[in-house]
Amino acid sequence: MTYCVGMLLDAGIVCLSDSRTNAGVDHINTFRKLTVFERPGERVLVLMSAGNLALTQTLMSLLRERLAAEGPSLHTVPNLFEAARHVGDCLREVHARDAEALKEFGIEFNASFILGGQILGEEPRLFQIYAAGNFIEATRDTPYFQIGEAKYGKPIIDRVIRPDTALDEAAKCALISMDSTIRSNLSVGVPLDLLVLRTGALKVASHTRIDADNAYFDMIRKRWSDSLREAFHALPSPDWLAD
Amino acid sequence: MTYCVGMLLDAGIVCLSDSRTNAGVDHINTFRKLTVFERPGERVLVLMSAGNLALTQTLMSLLRERLAAEGPSLHTVPNLFEAARHVGDCLREVHARDAEALKEFGIEFNASFILGGQILGEEPRLFQIYAAGNFIEATRDTPYFQIGEAKYGKPIIDRVIRPDTALDEAAKCALISMDSTIRSNLSVGVPLDLLVLRTGALKVASHTRIDADNAYFDMIRKRWSDSLREAFHALPSPDWLAD
Repeated sequence: MTYCVGMLLDAGIVCLSDSRTNAGVDHINTFRKLTVFERPGERVLVLMSAGNLALTQTLMSLLRERLAAEGPSLHTVPNLFEAARHVGDCLREVHARDAEALKEFGIEFNASFILGGQILGEEPRLFQIYAAGNFIEATRDTPYFQIGEAKYGKPIIDRVIRPDTALDEAAKCALISMDSTIRSNLSVGVPLDLLVLRTGALKVASHTRIDADNAYFDMIRKRWSDSLREAFHALPSPDWLAD
Repeated sequence: MTYCVGMLLDAGIVCLSDSRTNAGVDHINTFRKLTVFERPGERVLVLMSAGNLALTQTLMSLLRERLAAEGPSLHTVPNLFEAARHVGDCLREVHARDAEALKEFGIEFNASFILGGQILGEEPRLFQIYAAGNFIEATRDTPYFQIGEAKYGKPIIDRVIRPDTALDEAAKCALISMDSTIRSNLSVGVPLDLLVLRTGALKVASHTRIDADNAYFDMIRKRWSDSLREAFHALPSPDWLAD
């Protein structure tokens, strides 16, 4: 399993992904699920993936091959919408090649992606791309996307993320959301990739690898847990059940 | 969809269920999912259900029929383990009658249950019963079960419920867990059934129907939301992202 979240804010984009992959409980591995495509000053794109690792890795290889080839690539598409289309097109190529063979083994064509970034001439944009290669775009009403094991970490995002949330607050929220997910789902785990893009900078502002001994994440996990318990105990209990 | 949670505590049992059913977004209805079987002073059992409503209703009717018939019933089985077996047996009767016909329409035999209570001569016990009629029992390590849309409301339970949690605190936790679920999943909704059993009482201690204008639930929802936001803002943001 996987958990990735991308947030589109006025101040920029925050992306967080875990790195655990599993094919059954005895095939647990660490693979980076967040990839950056950058031409500083002109464009910066980040792609996060969930699903079948063979499929998502194949897509990443295809996208990288295209960078060096004739025709559209993530380094040449004119805007983020065309970047999402390009990812969708490449994904459909993977589907055309592999889906039937997988089906014979009863394996679903399971892959989803979050693509975010900024290309010179437009604002930052964020897309969620489905296995069929179609996609949706984040808006001010729904300024974030999650892929993979999304449910445990969704409530805190719904409660605090707004378009005007600051980047550091959004990163904190993403880490708390990840903490809730890691606690509840063994197949999501550190190290994490936390990437921040600032609106207008057209380059990566910060890319942090967070492992088990990261002091900030450790502090957040403990204090958030303590805060929740304190908040819980501070609320009155139903009086009709008093002893 | 559905959300039900049952908690086994030293002081007794807390059960909470929603009442929304849906068959597509334009068939939303309200059905009680929590049923009590009680012979005050001798036994009290509570059964909560999730899954296909036609199947779970059929099971409830079968269980009620058995109360008046010869042979085992929830009023005569000697202990909770045999009660769980009886529910499993009746569920297998439903499966034998209906599963094949449903399969022809591509409908899965989808039903799960939480059975809790106390029968004179033993401590309170709590079971989760699967569609196949097999079941597991709660222990001090895992003192609660959830059925239906379990993920959104799981983190708070994991954080606060222990066997020595008081009944009113556990009820508060169940309601907060339900609140997180209702906020995230449209197919879970009020009114709620909150049922509390006290160890040794062998009758229902409290059965409360909580609807949209219940003052306590409304207060809990607002104050929990405020507390989470306050706790979030009180935590330091990652300093490596400061502007």
